[in-house]
Amino acid sequence: MTAPDDAPISVREIGSFHVGGGLVTLSGLAPRELVSVPGGPVHHADPNGEIAAGQMYVQFVALAQPRGRVPVLMWHGGGGSGVNWETTPDGREGWQMRFLRAGVDVYLCDSVERGRATWAPYPYVYTSEPFFRTAREAWEVTFRFGPAGSWDPDPARRVAHPGQRFPVDTVDQFMKQTMPRWATNDQAAQAAYQALIARVGPCVLVAHSQGGHFALDTALAAPDQIRAVVLLDASGAPDPSLADAALLRDVPHLFVWGDFLDRHPFWVGTVPPVRRWYEALRDAGVDADWLDLPARGIHGNSHALMMDDNSWEIAELVLDWLRAHELIASGPAG
Amino acid sequence: MTAPDDAPISVREIGSFHVGGGLVTLSGLAPRELVSVPGGPVHHADPNGEIAAGQMYVQFVALAQPRGRVPVLMWHGGGGSGVNWETTPDGREGWQMRFLRAGVDVYLCDSVERGRATWAPYPYVYTSEPFFRTAREAWEVTFRFGPAGSWDPDPARRVAHPGQRFPVDTVDQFMKQTMPRWATNDQAAQAAYQALIARVGPCVLVAHSQGGHFALDTALAAPDQIRAVVLLDASGAPDPSLADAALLRDVPHLFVWGDFLDRHPFWVGTVPPVRRWYEALRDAGVDADWLDLPARGIHGNSHALMMDDNSWEIAELVLDWLRAHELIASGPAG
Repeated sequence: MTAPDDAPISVREIGSFHVGGGLVTLSGLAPRELVSVPGGPVHHADPNGEIAAGQMYVQFVALAQPRGRVPVLMWHGGGGSGVNWETTPDGREGWQMRFLRAGVDVYLCDSVERGRATWAPYPYVYTSEPFFRTAREAWEVTFRFGPAGSWDPDPARRVAHPGQRFPVDTVDQFMKQTMPRWATNDQAAQAAYQALIARVGPCVLVAHSQGGHFALDTALAAPDQIRAVVLLDASGAPDPSLADAALLRDVPHLFVWGDFLDRHPFWVGTVPPVRRWYEALRDAGVDADWLDLPARGIHGNSHALMMDDNSWEIAELVLDWLRAHELIASGPAG
Repeated sequence: MTAPDDAPISVREIGSFHVGGGLVTLSGLAPRELVSVPGGPVHHADPNGEIAAGQMYVQFVALAQPRGRVPVLMWHGGGGSGVNWETTPDGREGWQMRFLRAGVDVYLCDSVERGRATWAPYPYVYTSEPFFRTAREAWEVTFRFGPAGSWDPDPARRVAHPGQRFPVDTVDQFMKQTMPRWATNDQAAQAAYQALIARVGPCVLVAHSQGGHFALDTALAAPDQIRAVVLLDASGAPDPSLADAALLRDVPHLFVWGDFLDRHPFWVGTVPPVRRWYEALRDAGVDADWLDLPARGIHGNSHALMMDDNSWEIAELVLDWLRAHELIASGPAG
């Protein structure tokens, strides 16, 4: 049983740390001038020297009496951050709070280059320019809020998919969560995710979108530490011809999918490679489940499954799956 | 009495939101190509369209039975973020957790352009390039870890001020918290801070460094909402010839200062304007205190007062001052 929605939770500690990365040295850059505060003194700024790069930010809430056997690590997607698991754009409790209420210690993170991980300058450290997701891209391409051509800067003229469960009236709030991203930092991000596992130890991964590929690769790299992997609309997966699914024989996997996948070319191209990895896992005897929400009668979910108007219901499906795999203790709340 | 250090705290909700800003439109930019995940499909990215800009990120912990009369909002300094109030670089509980243990609801924020607020592209939205603080700048100039010329990339060759209270062995961890910053976003940041006050209502501000100037300006803009302002090494203040200190007659102020201020030219230039504002407040009859820690016999504090090895002691001084001003209820924990 999950505690009633308004019951307090008993928290041992809230905290954070950075993991991975280290100092790198910038050199050969021209000096600059900076005024720190309006009207304040001019500060001669030498951009050369050591800065930090390659680290990830991790934020944890440790319960006084967790019922989870291990903590749950929630990994965001591309252009996202740990914020995606906090309060939803329309102000409801996010998955962080829902999982805490279910008795599970939750670790959120901002991967390398995102949010509180901070980022490093380009082209000196990062080798390319960042991408900034536009609202049109989110709406029409990645997040499946509406069909191609249906975004409009004027809220009154936007057209969402019929039955859309994302709270589209708050898409501006959603866009405020959107992080610039680079296409050239995947190795640094993967290294930081693995450094996180080395620090936290045994855990469950719950990963969204691009975070799914990082989670699947991390499970392959540390199968003895990962107790389960839950993937929300994973946007990538290992290639079965290059990776050995049998390494994951003791790691249950749950692939969760929203709606409208066949109406968006990005997803038409993205789902099959993930399906191939799922099938390789099954062939290798891994306990892997493919939860197609529309096939289960749950229609209208966007790519933002943890923010949609039935986000608590989907959280509960995942929590039930974790309970069924004995990763959350049953019985009365501790 | 603060609860024992290891006692759980009873939490009603942990959550977050963005405040301020909105969608802006980018146009005239050349198309780009993006591969979202290694080996994944090529994604044609049109950089033109609406993105969010000008927002601030806010994270709150609401206690089940707060003893604080109003929440405390902790505002970071330049190059900082809400992380600065979380776990210290050497792994001790930060001021967020210390204030929660004292019974106060705490709101952290990442100001415009920092951390989870996300940032907007330059030169299209922001009009200048960002600055990246180097470890040498932090060590020798702003954070007063050691004298000029004492930073060295080799940890064994770094020289800190004698009696330095910052945990200098973890300066790499500290640098991982450091955010790029712009010198041209102060107006947007001020607007977002004021939008935050409009949303949260009556509150206490605890502000560090550059955040101090924003806090002092915010108190002037909303003196009926700000119950007290606590400033840790404020790096700027209103000009008494331009601002009316008498507006703050009902807003007590506490200015807290660390050590080594006279050994760093940046601080030799920075303290006097803040002192002038303090004196203007006193002249206007405001309840304002100037807490020079070395004069109180507390030596060795860096600019990172909330991370130094006596950070809990300084937190307790601030909490005592808030209790003395009846902003935290006395008596047994609720």
